[in-house]
Amino acid sequence: MSDKTKTILSGITPSGRLHIGNYFGAIRQHINMTQEGDAFYFIANYHALTSLRDGELLEQYTLDIAMDYLALGLDPESCTFFAQSDVPQVTELSWILGTLCPVSLMEKGVAYKDKVAQGLQPNIGLFTYPILQAADILIYHSDVVPVGADQKQNLEFSRDLAQKLNNQFGEDLLKQPEPHIVEEVAVVPGIDGRKMSKSYNNHILIFDEGKPLKKKVMSVVTDSAELEDPKDPDTCNVFKLLKLFATKEKLSDIADKYRAGGYGYGHAKKELLGEINDYFGEARERRKELEKSPDTIRDILKEGGRKARARAESVMEPIRKATGIIRTH
Amino acid sequence: MSDKTKTILSGITPSGRLHIGNYFGAIRQHINMTQEGDAFYFIANYHALTSLRDGELLEQYTLDIAMDYLALGLDPESCTFFAQSDVPQVTELSWILGTLCPVSLMEKGVAYKDKVAQGLQPNIGLFTYPILQAADILIYHSDVVPVGADQKQNLEFSRDLAQKLNNQFGEDLLKQPEPHIVEEVAVVPGIDGRKMSKSYNNHILIFDEGKPLKKKVMSVVTDSAELEDPKDPDTCNVFKLLKLFATKEKLSDIADKYRAGGYGYGHAKKELLGEINDYFGEARERRKELEKSPDTIRDILKEGGRKARARAESVMEPIRKATGIIRTH
Repeated sequence: MSDKTKTILSGITPSGRLHIGNYFGAIRQHINMTQEGDAFYFIANYHALTSLRDGELLEQYTLDIAMDYLALGLDPESCTFFAQSDVPQVTELSWILGTLCPVSLMEKGVAYKDKVAQGLQPNIGLFTYPILQAADILIYHSDVVPVGADQKQNLEFSRDLAQKLNNQFGEDLLKQPEPHIVEEVAVVPGIDGRKMSKSYNNHILIFDEGKPLKKKVMSVVTDSAELEDPKDPDTCNVFKLLKLFATKEKLSDIADKYRAGGYGYGHAKKELLGEINDYFGEARERRKELEKSPDTIRDILKEGGRKARARAESVMEPIRKATGIIRTH
Repeated sequence: MSDKTKTILSGITPSGRLHIGNYFGAIRQHINMTQEGDAFYFIANYHALTSLRDGELLEQYTLDIAMDYLALGLDPESCTFFAQSDVPQVTELSWILGTLCPVSLMEKGVAYKDKVAQGLQPNIGLFTYPILQAADILIYHSDVVPVGADQKQNLEFSRDLAQKLNNQFGEDLLKQPEPHIVEEVAVVPGIDGRKMSKSYNNHILIFDEGKPLKKKVMSVVTDSAELEDPKDPDTCNVFKLLKLFATKEKLSDIADKYRAGGYGYGHAKKELLGEINDYFGEARERRKELEKSPDTIRDILKEGGRKARARAESVMEPIRKATGIIRTH
């Protein structure tokens, strides 16, 4: 259902190279959703600062993720794709929302406690993260925010802050966006069979190719069945990965071979390698082209930033007026 | 000692009409200090939002304080006089400093606890106030910050945050400003003899005149000495107030009359009224002129904002580079 009057908002944290779990879990949906509404996608570099303190790395991650998305098919003409830091209004709104947010509400934040429990330094950026996130969401008058089932609390918090500002200063200043729960259509296993995740180091990068990719695919964990044994495709990690890439016909054909016996995991892995290469082949070529022209990336982000700022300013202006914050320029 | 290469920074909270305690305690020094260095004075409207939730009032307070300062003789040509909200870089730097500030450090904040004890709602704006204040101070590479003896902790906190950012990202990114302890040269008594303060409701507004001013002056508390009694000028509230306004010769003359007897408090109060009228007479006329041309005020703040933003941007640009925060525009 396409409705270009609906603003869809999503943020992407620049935290290094993307893996195929990221692709099937989020990126593919991001790219498809540009057909379903007026999508605003920002690279959350201010957020990344709460845990990353290496300027060169953060800049590289920011440009990398832009290249990744563009190479994978995000059309910057059909959405607004930009860096968070190109919209100064976002930290301004964050301050204003903070003045309306009781400290006690913040202390209940589950995500903060989790992150600190994981060993992150409890800094004020991490503590007030949900407020900046709320500003990110609210400043474009977003209608829909795609979230995983586990992120609903954060969106609820953003809706609360919008409500608080509206109650205090005027009903239509901020929109309360609706969550769009993203079903995990595909569970992507890592090479050890657990959910693919960088923290498990069981991931296959989207832009891996050649020997490194082959090595990873060949190390996908399987059981100890012999070549001639019949095998169960449904419990096999290689087959689970193949399901993400291969056509139904091909999958049905491979499943038959599994069950018949005489088809080894080595065969299946070669098949998988071929499928990955086919699936991401064009994206890899596009990425190599993009790497040669960093100016193109900057120009795309610049144009996205321009559009995002214009929207943000149109939302902030009445808020400044209502809160009594003058601006002379 | 004049040194126009030294940046002096001070913020002014827009919280309603100013009284003569404000004038002798801070405003006069602000105005004089423009001769001693490159002064940046901002009207702290984002800060005011932590406790004021009335847009019309905040806008009015902001313009009022600008008019007050200009009427009292602040020369906008000899300093940079602007609204905090005209410098978007300040909330940006505040976010970055927050990512470097341990939550525990914030929880120690004495000012926050005091404000909450006074009944202010404990919101995140109030809680993180010192971080925005640090950004305000640091973003202009201020050298000197005039502070009362009781505000040294806040400046120390700003210096700490500057140090943290420099240690992490590069030595010369932020300057550590020095405090300039403002001696309370004159204790300004209120009409009840306690320190003049709005919260005691014992204040005389700078721009009071006519009947309201006369009523206030006439109600300055004195002892019950009779007209003919000799009186001690040094313990008299009227004389203490006269000391702020009258010349030495005149004061000496009045002191003699006090001691001689036959000179009543009513005489002294009339003298005081005349002195106040003389002292602020020109300022009152200038303020009436300014009230007629709000565009002039906006133009002055606009020009100040332009200068302040240019300075702020020159400080933020290397910080963005060092932290890896891209900006395409």
